[in-house]
Order: sequence, then C-alpha cells, then structure tokens
Amino acid sequence: MACLGGGHGLYQTLLAARELEVEDICAIVTVADDGGSSGRLRKELDIIPPGDLRMALAALAGRDGECAQWAHTLQHRFGGSGALAGHAVGNLLIAGLTEVLGDMQSALDAVARLTSSAGRVVPVVNQPLDIEAQVRGLDEDPAALRSVRGQVAVATTPGQVESVRIFTGNTAEPEPPAHRAAVEALLGAELITLGPGSWFTSVIPHVLVPDIVQAINASQALRVVVLNLTPELGETRGFSAERHIQVLVQHAPQLRVDYIVVDTGSNFSPREREVIQRASSSLGAQAVFMDVAESSSGQLGASVHDPHKLAAAFAQLYAGPA
Amino acid sequence: MACLGGGHGLYQTLLAARELEVEDICAIVTVADDGGSSGRLRKELDIIPPGDLRMALAALAGRDGECAQWAHTLQHRFGGSGALAGHAVGNLLIAGLTEVLGDMQSALDAVARLTSSAGRVVPVVNQPLDIEAQVRGLDEDPAALRSVRGQVAVATTPGQVESVRIFTGNTAEPEPPAHRAAVEALLGAELITLGPGSWFTSVIPHVLVPDIVQAINASQALRVVVLNLTPELGETRGFSAERHIQVLVQHAPQLRVDYIVVDTGSNFSPREREVIQRASSSLGAQAVFMDVAESSSGQLGASVHDPHKLAAAFAQLYAGPA
Repeated sequence: MACLGGGHGLYQTLLAARELEVEDICAIVTVADDGGSSGRLRKELDIIPPGDLRMALAALAGRDGECAQWAHTLQHRFGGSGALAGHAVGNLLIAGLTEVLGDMQSALDAVARLTSSAGRVVPVVNQPLDIEAQVRGLDEDPAALRSVRGQVAVATTPGQVESVRIFTGNTAEPEPPAHRAAVEALLGAELITLGPGSWFTSVIPHVLVPDIVQAINASQALRVVVLNLTPELGETRGFSAERHIQVLVQHAPQLRVDYIVVDTGSNFSPREREVIQRASSSLGAQAVFMDVAESSSGQLGASVHDPHKLAAAFAQLYAGPA
Repeated sequence: MACLGGGHGLYQTLLAARELEVEDICAIVTVADDGGSSGRLRKELDIIPPGDLRMALAALAGRDGECAQWAHTLQHRFGGSGALAGHAVGNLLIAGLTEVLGDMQSALDAVARLTSSAGRVVPVVNQPLDIEAQVRGLDEDPAALRSVRGQVAVATTPGQVESVRIFTGNTAEPEPPAHRAAVEALLGAELITLGPGSWFTSVIPHVLVPDIVQAINASQALRVVVLNLTPELGETRGFSAERHIQVLVQHAPQLRVDYIVVDTGSNFSPREREVIQRASSSLGAQAVFMDVAESSSGQLGASVHDPHKLAAAFAQLYAGPA
C-alpha cells in the first residue's frame, strides 16, 4: 500500500493503513516545507525538509513501550526561546543521520528500524522542492494574479490560490525526477491513496511530478483520492468538494483514479452529488460518499479523518462493489 | 567494573574495560562541563551537560554495523555556522530523551539499549555541577590566588591551578549527593578505575563528592588510579607525576587506593620513582610503572593511553603479584 501526502492528513491515512494490516506500507511524502523546524534545517544544512517525513515515521512506529517512547521522542519539540526552541528531536536526528549515512533515505530507514516501523517512509523526490502559487485577491484589482513563493506563504496567503507549480534549485532539471523508491512502491502497490492534506502544498505537489502520475497510472493498484473534509481553513478556505477535484484535474489532467472518497458530513444534495460525480469522472473516477470524519470533530477547521472509518472505507473499496 | 572520569581519558579507559570482557561496566562521568555543545544545552535546557556522557556511550557502543552507525551518529557534529553548528547529534538526542522520559538516566539507558552498549553510563551526581579553581599566576603578584569559575575557564587558564571545588546551583545542598546508581556500581564492582583525564576538571571532581570517596573506600574492588601521561598541556601543564598524586591527596585525603598506574615513558630515575612511591603511599597505594601509552604518540600533548596496554595492566593488577 502506498500513501501519498504530507503533514497531518498523511498521518491520519497512515494510521488507517496500519489498521488494514497490509504487509508493505510506503508513505510517499512531500518535501516542499520551508517553515518551522523543517525549514530552518533545510536552510541551515541544505537537506530535504524532514518534518513531514518524521511525522510519517511517528505514525508508523511500533506501539510497544520502547518504540512508543522513540516515536514520542521523534515528535518532541524543544521549548524555550533558545537556538533549539521549536526543533523536533526527530528532525535533528534525521538530519544528523543524513549527514553521517550520506543520504536521507538511509537515515529514514535507520529511524524506521529504530521504531520497528510498520512501513517505509520515502520523500517523493530526492531533493528539496519549492512551491510557487498564483494567487488572486492580493491586489486592488480582484482579478489580478500574484506569485507567492514558499510553502508557508502559500499555505497562509489571505488570497485565493489558483494554481501551484513546483521547482527545484537545480535549473537544469525543471521537472524533478521522482525518488526511485517512490515509483517502485507505487508500481508494486495493491492500493494507492492520495490525500487528504493541505491541497495545494501537500497533495497537488505529488501529481506535479510527471514520474509519479505515470507510476500511479501504470500501477495495477486500486487508486483512491481522499478529499479533505469541508469546511476547512487555510489555503482552500471555502473550497467545495468539487473545487478540490477540479484543481486536481487542472494540475494533473493525465491522472487516472478509481475512487474519490467524499465525507458525507456535508449532507450533499442530490444535485451536489451529481456535480461532484461529474468532476470525478474527469479523472476516470467514481465519487463515493462515505462517513470518514472523526465523530467528535465539529469545530471549524479542527475536523480530521477518523483512521478506523478510513480503514473500513479502504477495505470496502478494495473488496469491490458488494 | 566501574570507571570514573570524563572526556577523552574516560573514553580510552572504557575501550580498555571492553577488552577485559567483564560482565558489568559502569562509566561514572563528571558533569561540570560548561563549554561547547554541552554547555549550550546545559544553559538552554537546564540539563546535566550531556557531552562526556555521550562520549562514554560512544566508547561502549556495540561494534556491529548498525550499532557502529548509531555510535558514529551520536558523535557526529553539525558543521556550518548556523544555530546547530558544533552540536553533537548525541547531545541533542540525550537532551530530547531526557525531556520526554523525565530524567537523564532513563535517556542514557535508552541510548545504551539503542547502541547495544557494553555497559551503563551514569552521571556522578544527578545534577549539573560547577567548578571553581584557585589559580596562581594571573596577577602581578605571583603568589596571589584568584578564583576562576567554570570548566572551560579552569581548563584553559594560563595560571597554575592550586585547587578546585565543586558546587551546585542548589545552595541548600553545598555537598551534592552522589547519583545512587554511581554508588551502587562502585560498591558492586570488582575493579574501580579513576583517571586518566583532565585532572582538575574530570578526575578530581569525582573525589570531591563525599559519597563517592566513601563508596570507593567501602568497596571490595581493586582500586586503580591511572595517572595522566607527561608531559601534558592544559590545566596541569608541567605537572610531574608526583604533583598529580599530591593534588589528589590534597583534595581527598581520605581516599584509599590500591595501585597508581604510572606510564614508564618518562624514564624515571630511581630517585624519581621513590618520590612517586612516597606520594602514592599517602593514599595507601603502591605506584606501578607500566608501559600504557600509545606507541605512535610522541607529539607534545597528543599522547593518549593505549586501550590494549591499559587492559593488560588492569588484568595484571587484578590477577595480583606474580
């Protein structure tokens, strides 16, 4: 099973993946973060930002006492106001291992062994990525587009993101090649998931890597997109379910998917369902309306996917139509 | 076997201890460091300075591939000129584990398990220590004494250190209690070693803890002091072998020791040996002159003890007179 995403969305998906007790889980993680502990390490040490990778490792860590302690330690952040304040211990450890072992994948695999990980964690491309968005609503002219650069800037812009592109520091390679391990995991998977997560900065960057779209399309896996819960704050504030699908199509028209999981929490009207279904068909997908949100959630922006429900949804889709 | 010391001297002793293949090795480590990565962590996070403890863990780490990688990673220092520059990865890991697990001993034991350590590493007291030295030669009046505070300041003073004292931030507890695990290790050991190492900042601080002297004296172990090689740079520049012994006696007149290992590299005259023997007798000890220096050493200040020779010396002394 291969799960594409980043941040908290991927974390929940990986918890769901664990419940399926499949043999191989591979978390394929975005690497465009430029803020917080990750962003500081990226700038200071010139490495792939480790934060989203660390979080995926924490989600997959073994649950016995010692592994749980290590997972807790990976996630622990130093407090105070000194040079270390805000740094996650796991980010520092991954950074140190990367310098010692020579590449980040070896570092991630070492931490996976340390924590008896339920799977492997790989960066989607083997270098740091940058994100640039075209954003509307930042000027007096409401139709004017402005470029906004960097994951933090894009994720927090008060404007409306219209599109994003990814690029690397290497101008000779405008379209970054996918990490070989990511492509192999996609080709070998029986189930591929994309999302949920920050749509423009954690989900869409994956399908902007041509090798990744190609591998998803070529894979024999069941391919499932998990839409974000709505309403939502941040970069897709006010986005409807079909708008999420539309921007995915807009950024990766070649992408082919089997199912798009839409949470039923929004009580869609038959008309709305039809619109979502039509948008899904642009990806060759069928929209499926399932209860996948955490029951306790309710506060605006605080809702998350429930790993148990998500696992049940994946199992049901994988088993095929009843 | 319990080995008291700190820094590079303790590192060499622990390599020797490993060669003896005794069942239990306990490294009892000074905690007065206030410089470098350790000093920064001590100040920023209010923890026991981890550097000397980390180095002891590296000395005791298992030798197979994965353990060796972890040991290498513990010792690895971030480069560059950023916020992390100079920090050893192991120091950051110990600091993070200490915050998560609630005490430093649990953190040290977790790293010991991670590295399949050949022994346990414990701080001599369970709190950071400070050092203050009385130093001669810093004033126009060559007889005047000045107080110099902090391990780095004492270790690098251009003056001549006459005496040191330790103290803690806790004024209600002027004589810090020893860490219980250190006392237990000393009482249960068959062999206790003290030194080599920076005499005033890594060796003598141990015998300024009353519980430690009491435990050494009460132990059934063979008690061996290993003198530094001479000539030497730093805080005991120009110190003769007997001067090393004299300052030990001066700081811990109650201490009782069986042997004092003196390297034969200095080609002592019979008269010099007699002087050293007399100084040793103040501790109830016999000076033994043995070849324990690394053969390749020769540069001033760069000489270190040879772990193989040191192990052979310990084995010979433990076996008793031929």
